[in-house]
Amino acid sequence: MKKLNVLKEGKAKRFYETDDPDLYWVEYLNQATALNGKRKEAIAEKGLLNNKMDSLIFNYLKANGIATHFVKQLSDSEQLVQAVTMIPLEVVVRNAASGSFQRKFKQAYLAPLDPPVVEFFYKSDALDDPFMNAEQAAALKVVTLAESQTIEQFALKINQLLIQRFTAADLQLVDFKVEFGKTKAGQLVLADEISPDSCRLVDMTTKNSLDKDVFRKHTGDLTTVYHEVLQRLENSEVAHVSR
Amino acid sequence: MKKLNVLKEGKAKRFYETDDPDLYWVEYLNQATALNGKRKEAIAEKGLLNNKMDSLIFNYLKANGIATHFVKQLSDSEQLVQAVTMIPLEVVVRNAASGSFQRKFKQAYLAPLDPPVVEFFYKSDALDDPFMNAEQAAALKVVTLAESQTIEQFALKINQLLIQRFTAADLQLVDFKVEFGKTKAGQLVLADEISPDSCRLVDMTTKNSLDKDVFRKHTGDLTTVYHEVLQRLENSEVAHVSR
Repeated sequence: MKKLNVLKEGKAKRFYETDDPDLYWVEYLNQATALNGKRKEAIAEKGLLNNKMDSLIFNYLKANGIATHFVKQLSDSEQLVQAVTMIPLEVVVRNAASGSFQRKFKQAYLAPLDPPVVEFFYKSDALDDPFMNAEQAAALKVVTLAESQTIEQFALKINQLLIQRFTAADLQLVDFKVEFGKTKAGQLVLADEISPDSCRLVDMTTKNSLDKDVFRKHTGDLTTVYHEVLQRLENSEVAHVSR
Repeated sequence: MKKLNVLKEGKAKRFYETDDPDLYWVEYLNQATALNGKRKEAIAEKGLLNNKMDSLIFNYLKANGIATHFVKQLSDSEQLVQAVTMIPLEVVVRNAASGSFQRKFKQAYLAPLDPPVVEFFYKSDALDDPFMNAEQAAALKVVTLAESQTIEQFALKINQLLIQRFTAADLQLVDFKVEFGKTKAGQLVLADEISPDSCRLVDMTTKNSLDKDVFRKHTGDLTTVYHEVLQRLENSEVAHVSR
């Protein structure tokens, strides 16, 4: 496997082509951004921490039957993924009120949400990533109504598995964001990253934030917090996942 | 049937109790509001026009199997309806891009929407009537997920019937807003009003607005336009509704 040209660079990752057109080489970067990229800081070890956590989580999800783009971890800060066509939706799953949901509906912080809430945000810079429902997505040809239902059920299944995994690490999964893609064979797979960059996590007892909110809100040191999360994940396991 | 105390007064209608606790007496008022009630004008004949149009439409929907709160027209500006517990959702159905949808997604005016879009807005003054999806409505205990699906299918069926009725009157139904209620027996019924106050209608050929937008945007005389719509409805009929 050879790492070839840079294909694209996101806020926290760089994608390279490889000599296999179906595979991308991903490098996790030592930087963090906030305010939609307006604030950007170099942070030592962040690439390593996110790559290790993401690889651990994706191996766990794959072992539990979730179709993903993840192939394998290549090094401390690199991994190999399938080349997929991304669906332009940010899919948010919420188990407790926080962030934009808490503000919009004037809910108490961490008020339990039952059933969990699934939200679609249309990835469009021109439109400023608006919140949309399944019917709007269908009318705008983003995904069909049937695909929306599949994505929603897929996201809820991932949520159940993540809750079990994070609970074992004494972490409450407040909410998270995922994205999906389609392989060349047309299979819908979980793509993008799962880490404290994309999940809201709080300590099960103290309810202290253990995620990127410490960077966004300047309330703590990102590296220290991410180390803590990785350590908790590495020192815990889910013996048996009930389905 | 006796008209008793005023129960509540909205922007365009006044509800009275009757000697039958299951029935309300509704008086359509000669006033129009805009800007969420901040602008309010007395308009001769508006009560009569809206009541006649609403009664015509509800008789048509009832004849085609739609469960509604409507009992009968009592006079030019009065009608009798069932007492229902309103569900706090404004349900919008869109067949073409206009208004907030057009702005939010930067669509061309009257761009066709296929499939039609159904949107829920949570009726809450404290929250400023936010747009919400079915999962948010379920988590906030507004309606269950199953009720959302029922309401959505109900709204789409009403849409199909309204399209046929307005098409016969040479009017294009761009979008409309409806609300639903539950009878004491627990039946979900279409409640609230259907008129050019709650529908966006344009002439099938010229695409000129024939609805409350002429009042909102100061582009025409409301009474003249509503007379035109009523006349077109009274002079047309749908011979057979295919289902």
